[in-house]
Amino acid sequence: MSSTDLQKIVGLSKRRGFVFPGSDIYGGLANTYDFGPLGVLLKKNISDLWWKTFVTKRSDMYGLDTSNLMSPKVWEASGHTANFTNVLIDCLNCKYRTRADHLIEDALPGYENVEGRPLSELDEIIKSNNIKCPKCGLSKWTPSRNFNQLFETSVGIITEGTDTAFLRGELAQGMFVNFKNVLDSMHPKLPFGIAQSGKAYRNEITMGKFTFRTLEFDLAEFEYFVDPKYWEVHFEYWKEEMMKFALAVGLNATDLRWRAHSKEELAHYSKRTEDLEYRFPWGYKEMWGLAYRTDFDLKNHMEKSGVDMNYVDPFTNDKFIPHVIEPTFGISRLFTILLMNAYTEEQDRVVLKLPKNIAPYRAAVFPLVKNKEDIVNKARDIFETLVTAGISTAWDDRGNIGKRYYSQDEIGTPSCVTIDYQTLEDNTVTVRDRDTTKQDRIRLEDLISRL
Amino acid sequence: MSSTDLQKIVGLSKRRGFVFPGSDIYGGLANTYDFGPLGVLLKKNISDLWWKTFVTKRSDMYGLDTSNLMSPKVWEASGHTANFTNVLIDCLNCKYRTRADHLIEDALPGYENVEGRPLSELDEIIKSNNIKCPKCGLSKWTPSRNFNQLFETSVGIITEGTDTAFLRGELAQGMFVNFKNVLDSMHPKLPFGIAQSGKAYRNEITMGKFTFRTLEFDLAEFEYFVDPKYWEVHFEYWKEEMMKFALAVGLNATDLRWRAHSKEELAHYSKRTEDLEYRFPWGYKEMWGLAYRTDFDLKNHMEKSGVDMNYVDPFTNDKFIPHVIEPTFGISRLFTILLMNAYTEEQDRVVLKLPKNIAPYRAAVFPLVKNKEDIVNKARDIFETLVTAGISTAWDDRGNIGKRYYSQDEIGTPSCVTIDYQTLEDNTVTVRDRDTTKQDRIRLEDLISRL
Repeated sequence: MSSTDLQKIVGLSKRRGFVFPGSDIYGGLANTYDFGPLGVLLKKNISDLWWKTFVTKRSDMYGLDTSNLMSPKVWEASGHTANFTNVLIDCLNCKYRTRADHLIEDALPGYENVEGRPLSELDEIIKSNNIKCPKCGLSKWTPSRNFNQLFETSVGIITEGTDTAFLRGELAQGMFVNFKNVLDSMHPKLPFGIAQSGKAYRNEITMGKFTFRTLEFDLAEFEYFVDPKYWEVHFEYWKEEMMKFALAVGLNATDLRWRAHSKEELAHYSKRTEDLEYRFPWGYKEMWGLAYRTDFDLKNHMEKSGVDMNYVDPFTNDKFIPHVIEPTFGISRLFTILLMNAYTEEQDRVVLKLPKNIAPYRAAVFPLVKNKEDIVNKARDIFETLVTAGISTAWDDRGNIGKRYYSQDEIGTPSCVTIDYQTLEDNTVTVRDRDTTKQDRIRLEDLISRL
Repeated sequence: MSSTDLQKIVGLSKRRGFVFPGSDIYGGLANTYDFGPLGVLLKKNISDLWWKTFVTKRSDMYGLDTSNLMSPKVWEASGHTANFTNVLIDCLNCKYRTRADHLIEDALPGYENVEGRPLSELDEIIKSNNIKCPKCGLSKWTPSRNFNQLFETSVGIITEGTDTAFLRGELAQGMFVNFKNVLDSMHPKLPFGIAQSGKAYRNEITMGKFTFRTLEFDLAEFEYFVDPKYWEVHFEYWKEEMMKFALAVGLNATDLRWRAHSKEELAHYSKRTEDLEYRFPWGYKEMWGLAYRTDFDLKNHMEKSGVDMNYVDPFTNDKFIPHVIEPTFGISRLFTILLMNAYTEEQDRVVLKLPKNIAPYRAAVFPLVKNKEDIVNKARDIFETLVTAGISTAWDDRGNIGKRYYSQDEIGTPSCVTIDYQTLEDNTVTVRDRDTTKQDRIRLEDLISRL
């Protein structure tokens, strides 16, 4: 897939109901997107698989769903009110606002990653290279300055005046703040994890590519609490598990690589971070991250709240604050990567080669003709049987069968089931496979196991 | 369950990991709650059943997952920036802030529902009845005034200055704004619905009871688009379907009633609304709502955006703006109602009699003893088999079996499976039923079908 082909994904997404621009009818709200009828099915399938893999199937993982709005003290203790910033710069001439690191990276080959460098260094690079404003062409910039990425709002409850609150910039703090509650209610033994999936919010100031870099996005992550002596073992373990999951959703190992963060680039809470990068048409970029957060968060919350965050080993009676390995799965990013990865143009059709267990619909049901009551009723019965069995199923009675195949191929439906005259006679249906385009006639009683 | 018993639910919720107060270690953030490890499982089961019932199983329903942050124009067109208000009043002496309607309802028997009355009328009731401040006992109030319930924030993208945005106060606008996108991508025929579940945010200014009336809450709702000629038929149909779902999750018909909104109480967009009320220990209160929103929203968005919201009937070629029936299911409310409904104190135990398909764990697996490797390994195998089959399963190897039964009863686990010495000999296990407390010995190969 070439760089221009992203436009095909954007087009298909809107035309077929995967992703619509946010606030579309009002000209859009920059960096927001709405998941459409097929998008929500695909995203649900990804999230459900994640939950099943990392929570349901494990006895060492505890789920949570924490409030987005938290006490501002949480974000002070976590360091986000001080450190969760991007570097902003404005054009003095045309008022164009952008991120200083992105400005440099876009303008200068060889500067691939300057995130985290000191403001003065960024200003010096811009000045000495005479980087021009991409809008007006002049080179008159304000000095660089920090801009906090947390969205701010006010809570109006009870007392005169209002209190500042922030939309969560990451899910992790919800887990740290509840560490003690989970210890007390679930009595877990180390190593164990606290998992959560949900939305996070970041006040991004530059335009992102399609659903990459949006104001709100779906994350799934867990904090895995370990004995600090063994953090490296767990880090390596989760690196492997993350890669396995990437392959399980259909990505190719050849499109993935791990990249360690440089010292400047490391977040304020991390001693080691590696990004799992995907080979986009525009180069390798972050898909997911794996961070060793040490005891930074629990220690700070313990200091600020006065609540004891120690864990007592039931065997040795050792008392210590666990350290944290944090695998973060960007679900919104994965969503679009999966579309890009699955998109295939063949001679006479477009196919989304999504894995069967992730495609929005597992099957489509077609009555051969729509004006023959017996056939339509039989097809209805089959549709009901499938959806009652929990199989996500499309219904299509429009146009000729070839067009319907084409339509389902384009949204990745693995199997199309056609009910025809013969079905009424011998209770068989044709099942057509998305990838081979082959049709088989099978007995109705074998349909569910076949799908 | 008596009114004081709510405290038992609150206590059990925290102790067993259903619900924790939000920002707990920092003394809490009023009206926020976090769902714990068991709470998230229960809530997921409710949401999944809702989605399966109303989206997967129907061919007339289209799902969405829309951005929380939308253009402010959306909320202007919908009337929320002007009308989505509560009436606020402050005590001049001690600065206590409350809702004027709640102040009256709490102080005066006979005034059960004054929401929606004019400000001057509320002030007059307070004055003539000399209603005192519940904090300081004086009767010196500011005049009543409107307070908008939408949370406000600022988006910092691209241009100098910032733009106001609101957290969504309801899910519905996400569906209306995408009505045209759904028409164009999915080609639905009337009647059809657009469904969504997710969080909504309201800046509540009075304290709610436990998880009722929180700053953010989980909703599941759909906008069902109909030919205006038949709106009453559809209204009645959805009334029945909502009641069916309430019974399907285990509520009793005797605890439920429909109550029609009075004219003053109706939201600005509605011509008819009925609340499905639950009989709380403190009286009947809203659980879910069903509203006839007419073409209010689509018409306003059409006027404000210039985008054509007409539907063309494929048979008659009639062109019109569909009308809307809106069933809203409060998932956070249902969550706690289900706990209250399920909570049962028996002579020697507490049991959560949750329906099997909704209980956090479907089963628990116990190795009889934890120091016998063969038994533990066998139990592990069985645990793996169950979770791989998608059955949410608890693992417990602590203390005697009686205590483990008690512990699982209290969180509603329908079946406990014990692996003992006999299991190693003949591949049978005991299955103990939560409600009858009876134990059966069954063959391992029958276990999954039994659960």
